[in-house]
This record gives sequence, structure tokens and C-alpha cells, in this order.
Amino acid sequence: MRTIAILGSTGSVGVTTLDVVSRFRDRFRVAALGAGRNIDLLAAQVRSFAPELVAVADEASAQRLRERLGPATPCIMIGLEGAVAVATHPSAELVVSAMVGALGLRPTLRAIESGKDIAFANKEVLVMAGEVVTRAAHSYSIHLLPVDSEHNALFQCLDGRPRTAIKRLILTASGGPFRTLPIERFTQVTVAEALKHPIWNMGSKITIDSSTLMNKGLEVIEAYWLFGVEADRIAVVVHPQSVIHSMVEMVDGSVLAEMAVPDMAIPAAYALAYPERLPLSHLRPLSLLDCGPLTFEAPDLERFPCLRLAYEALRAGGTMPACLNAANEELVAGFLNHRLRFPEIWQHLETVMERYSNSPARTLEDVLEADSWARSAVHELIAA
Amino acid sequence: MRTIAILGSTGSVGVTTLDVVSRFRDRFRVAALGAGRNIDLLAAQVRSFAPELVAVADEASAQRLRERLGPATPCIMIGLEGAVAVATHPSAELVVSAMVGALGLRPTLRAIESGKDIAFANKEVLVMAGEVVTRAAHSYSIHLLPVDSEHNALFQCLDGRPRTAIKRLILTASGGPFRTLPIERFTQVTVAEALKHPIWNMGSKITIDSSTLMNKGLEVIEAYWLFGVEADRIAVVVHPQSVIHSMVEMVDGSVLAEMAVPDMAIPAAYALAYPERLPLSHLRPLSLLDCGPLTFEAPDLERFPCLRLAYEALRAGGTMPACLNAANEELVAGFLNHRLRFPEIWQHLETVMERYSNSPARTLEDVLEADSWARSAVHELIAA
Repeated sequence: MRTIAILGSTGSVGVTTLDVVSRFRDRFRVAALGAGRNIDLLAAQVRSFAPELVAVADEASAQRLRERLGPATPCIMIGLEGAVAVATHPSAELVVSAMVGALGLRPTLRAIESGKDIAFANKEVLVMAGEVVTRAAHSYSIHLLPVDSEHNALFQCLDGRPRTAIKRLILTASGGPFRTLPIERFTQVTVAEALKHPIWNMGSKITIDSSTLMNKGLEVIEAYWLFGVEADRIAVVVHPQSVIHSMVEMVDGSVLAEMAVPDMAIPAAYALAYPERLPLSHLRPLSLLDCGPLTFEAPDLERFPCLRLAYEALRAGGTMPACLNAANEELVAGFLNHRLRFPEIWQHLETVMERYSNSPARTLEDVLEADSWARSAVHELIAA
Repeated sequence: MRTIAILGSTGSVGVTTLDVVSRFRDRFRVAALGAGRNIDLLAAQVRSFAPELVAVADEASAQRLRERLGPATPCIMIGLEGAVAVATHPSAELVVSAMVGALGLRPTLRAIESGKDIAFANKEVLVMAGEVVTRAAHSYSIHLLPVDSEHNALFQCLDGRPRTAIKRLILTASGGPFRTLPIERFTQVTVAEALKHPIWNMGSKITIDSSTLMNKGLEVIEAYWLFGVEADRIAVVVHPQSVIHSMVEMVDGSVLAEMAVPDMAIPAAYALAYPERLPLSHLRPLSLLDCGPLTFEAPDLERFPCLRLAYEALRAGGTMPACLNAANEELVAGFLNHRLRFPEIWQHLETVMERYSNSPARTLEDVLEADSWARSAVHELIAA
């Protein structure tokens, strides 16, 4: 029996994780759940999984949860303190880090420092603070188990193999909804269009990131920290069918790939049960006979400058990736709120990165300072 | 420094193996080479690799080799005794079993009984005598390292993973030169047409087997013995581009695949250096951007009855696979000698299998008896 805690239980990955848990109740127990303001869903999760502790965004949310659950209400905590309590719950051996964006950084780091293995679905945390997080993971000898389908694919391909045998990591990208849109149409892209991902059904922030290819750029940075392979040996290939989730090219020319239907249950279950595999017999199996030809093309960096900017941030090192990540978060929020046109996401991002004075990223404070500077810089640009 | 012996050094896999050795002379030493009658090539190999022992087919071949090498001639042995001496050479830690067909059985078995690891390129040995060979491999605690590109791919995908996690093995097949030939044209297929494989450049016996899909059938039987997965969980999918060399579907729905350019240096090097990987920098890397769409289709068992017959032999068990293998060898030889039309390979094979009284395959003698019966049965049919 493995006891887990979930940061972000009402998000897409959190829900999928709990669905896996519900199918293997003899193997997993849920000690703590952290969510934001989706109290209806959280209440249902509490009834089903009976955690000892839940965390919500604020006191109003806590009150709503108490009203729904009545005498069955578990211990409730709020805000960052609540998220940290979930992340460090004494019974939890593994913490699923599935909050969206930079908010997950402190709780995830505290979970590592409490010796928990981490099932990592919050790529922004590694993008911002890869050095801090991987150093802590090393110090506390915990496993960082990637849940992102691409990194989970790489992890499956590499499992147990020495890193010296790696020639290149090859991340696949669906290309998003605008892979073939004429470049002059980009200024007219609407929020609704950008939210239509061709393959995956995910939260809105990651879906916009997929439409700009920033999601792939963040994944390149994440792969750098997870697998210790430098930027020049991490390639991105557009593979619109998204059947191959990523690949590792070895020094002998073999390319190992992981393929699957696009269902996050697979990477979530792999991280939960690692090193075992759970029989996910409820999933439709992948049928190569039915999925049509698999095609591959190079990503178009003219069309998708966010991917180029992410590589530049990774090569620059220091706090530049934290600056990129925070600025992108704010710019995506600006686009979702209809305050920016689609191409302004990368146009403003490039401006912010040009203005940023890079610095080392040795501590959490270094990272949070860069994060905060970048958010302010975006707000100034949007207000101007 | 790993010391090796090669059975079948002048064949396609033998030559490729020695090419790999020549690029990593600091890692490998060649103790013994076994060949047949290709004395020109063998003489060049002896000059380059200086084995202590060579084996050739007969005294005439030995004499020709002595004439070519003069005072530099190593110890020469002939016939089966010679092949066994190569296979059991005291210095060799690993024996590359790359003879063609059933001839390799005794020497390979003797190598296993001498505690050598086996790099396995002679699939007929496992097809004939899978029970005997795998039992010996288990008793003597040696590694069976598959060199066949499909099984090497499976081995790479599975490396270190428990067999309980396997749902299915999926062998890929190019489909051979007659994948789209109208079925009524099969009676007119010439030897020259059948020898034109679309992807791989190999010996003539295996190339004919590829054109009938018998090669894939033999591989299904080989996979059964190497990986302990029963017939119903070994699938074949036609993949004309041959980029994916084979796949393993896991119980969680993940499908792990190995891809590479079609060069036997990769599996040969993997088996030679296992568990390390050699940097094969002389090979053109696989470029998914240049290889066109990857397609998959179900094999047509009407068109290619050999694949159906191989599955039937595996399900029947006992010495039926040995019967299938020996009959096929003789029938392919008959086709290559222009004594049979192409479809007679499977027509006669089915007749021979129907006439055969199956029996257990517990000993080498059981297997050799079936082998011999099947060859006689084919000769009778051809003479009739």
C-alpha cells in the first residue's frame, strides 16, 4: 500500500490520478488533497478517498467545503501553508505535484525536503528552479518521476540505462491547432481557437502553451533538468498524430520510443506505481493499424518563436528560464483575458527577456526574484 | 577485452560482426572463426583478426586456406568437429551463432554447455530446438543475446523489465517484395524477383523466407522461446518502411519500440557489448524527418500462408516447429534450384505438416529425427 498526497487534485492530472487510484484501491491510499476553489469536485473527492487533510485556496472555499461535507469534514488548511501541509503530510510517501504554474514551487520543494518521491506534472517548477529542485532531489535521495507524457516516455525509454549511452532526446510535438495556419492569420487567432487542442484535453494554460509551442519549449528545459542532457542534444520533432510520445536516440543509433493512446492515466499510473506497471485494462489499446500514417516534420521557429525563446533561455541559464516562465504565464493570462492578441505573447516575451539582467539561480530567492521581476515587466508592457 | 568466436564468419552477420570488431579493437579479440567454403574472404579475415583457430567445411577448403595464408596459417579444423571446436574455444566468452539453418544447432548447443554467452543470429536453431536450447541456457546460466533485428529490438525494449509487465510482443515485417503483388501472379514469381528484398541485404535463404513471410513466422517462434510469451500474445504487423524494428505492448498500454536505420551493425554491436552500447558513429543516424510516413497494416495470411503455418506449428508444439523449419529449408533450396514454383513452398509445406506425427521435443535426438523426417518427406514430394 503506497500512501500519496496530491497537490492540484481538481486539475486535469489530479483527476486522472484519482481515477487511477480508484481502480487500484488495494495499492494506494490518499492521505492529503490540495485544491483551489473547485469545491464541488473537491467535496466529491473527499467523500470518495477520505483524506486526513485537505487544502483549499482561502477561508471562503474552506467554509463552502465544510458546508458540503458536514460532520465528515477532514482537517482543512488554506493558502500556501495548506499546500505545504499537503506536500509534507507525514503519511505520504509520494506527492503528486500537479498544481499549475509557479505556485507549486514552494510546496514541491518542501515535499522533497521531507523525503517524499515526487510524481512531477508541474513542469513550471522545474523550468523555474531546475537547479534548486534537482539539487534537493539529489540531497534527499528521492525519485523525480515525470508525469508529463513526453518526459514519462523518455523516462520509460531510459529506465535503468546509463546516461552515457544517450546521444539525443527527441521530444515530439503535435504542432498544436495552428501548425498549418498561414502566419498572417496569427494576429486574428481567438481564445476559443487557441483552446482547441487537436489531441489532448487539458487545462487552459497548458493548452495555450501548446498552441504557441511554448509548452514544448518548457518541456525542453524540463528534460534538461530531469535527464542531464544539454540543449544541443534535445531535439523537437513535430508529429501531428501524437502516437509517439517521445524518443531517445542512443550512441549506437538505436532510437527507443514510447507510444500510447493520448491518455494521462498511463504516465500517472507509471509514476504512481513505479517501478511496477499497473494493468490499465479500462483503456482502449493503441492500434497502429487504425491510427493512420505517422508523420514527422521539423518545427517552424519562424511561426512559433516561443520554442526558439525557450531554447535561448535554457542556453542562457541562470534565472533566464524563470523569467521566461513567469513572463509567459502572465502573457498567457493576458491573452485568455482578451487583453493581448495572440502574437503579442511572444513579442512581449522577447522584449521582457531582452530587458532582463540574467543572474545565477542558486537559491529559491534568486528564482522568485526573477519570477517577480518578469511578472511586473509584463504588466508594465500590457499597461503601456 | 571480450574474447569472441564466430560461427558463420563469412556470412552476412559474420561480416558485419567483424566490421564492428574492427572498429573497437581495444574491446574485442577474435579467438576462433568458423566458415564454410568462402576461403578468399576467410583468408582476409584471418589476416585481419589473427584467430588461433579456424574451421572450414572440408579438407579441400582447408588446403586452399593453407595455400593462401602460408606460414601465417592458424590451426585449421573441418566439418562439424571444426564448428564445435570454434564454438567451445577455451578463450571465447561469447560465441556469435551465425551459421545458416539447422547446421548451427550442435555447435551452438555445445557452446552453451561450455558456458559461453551466445549472440544469436541463427534463428533456425531456436525454431528447431527452442526447448533444448533454452533449457541448456538456463542450466548453464548464460545470456542468449538476440542479433536478429526484430528480437534485438524486443530485447532492447524489455531490457531489465519484468516479463509480467508484457501484454504483447509486436513483430514488424516489411512485407517483402510481394506485399502488393496480385495473388494470381505468385505462380510466376522468379528466383531473381524473390531475392530482391525491399529493405535488407541478406543471404539468399533468409531473403526467400522474407518474401514468403516464413521469416516472420520463424521469428514468432523464436520470440516465443526468447521471451516466454505464448503465440496468442505475439502479433505481426506489416510496416513497409521497416523503421520500427519491433515493439512491446505493456500491461499499462505503453508500447515501447526500437527504431533504427536497417543496418545489422546495431544489433550485432548491442549483442557483442551487452549491457553497454558502442558508439557506432560510422552509421548514418535515423532521420524521421526524411523517412516518410510510417504505415502499418495487418499481414494477409491468404497471400502468405507460411506465416499461418508457423503459428500453427508453434501452437502444436513438440517437434512440429522442427518439422516446419526443416521442410521449409529444403523447399526454399528447391525453389532456389528452380525445381519448385514459388507457391509450392507453402503448398508442399502444408502437406508435409499434415503428414507429420507430432512428438515431444525434449532432446536433441527428438529434434534431429523430426528434422530428418521432414527433409525426406520434401524430397519425396519433389521427386513425385
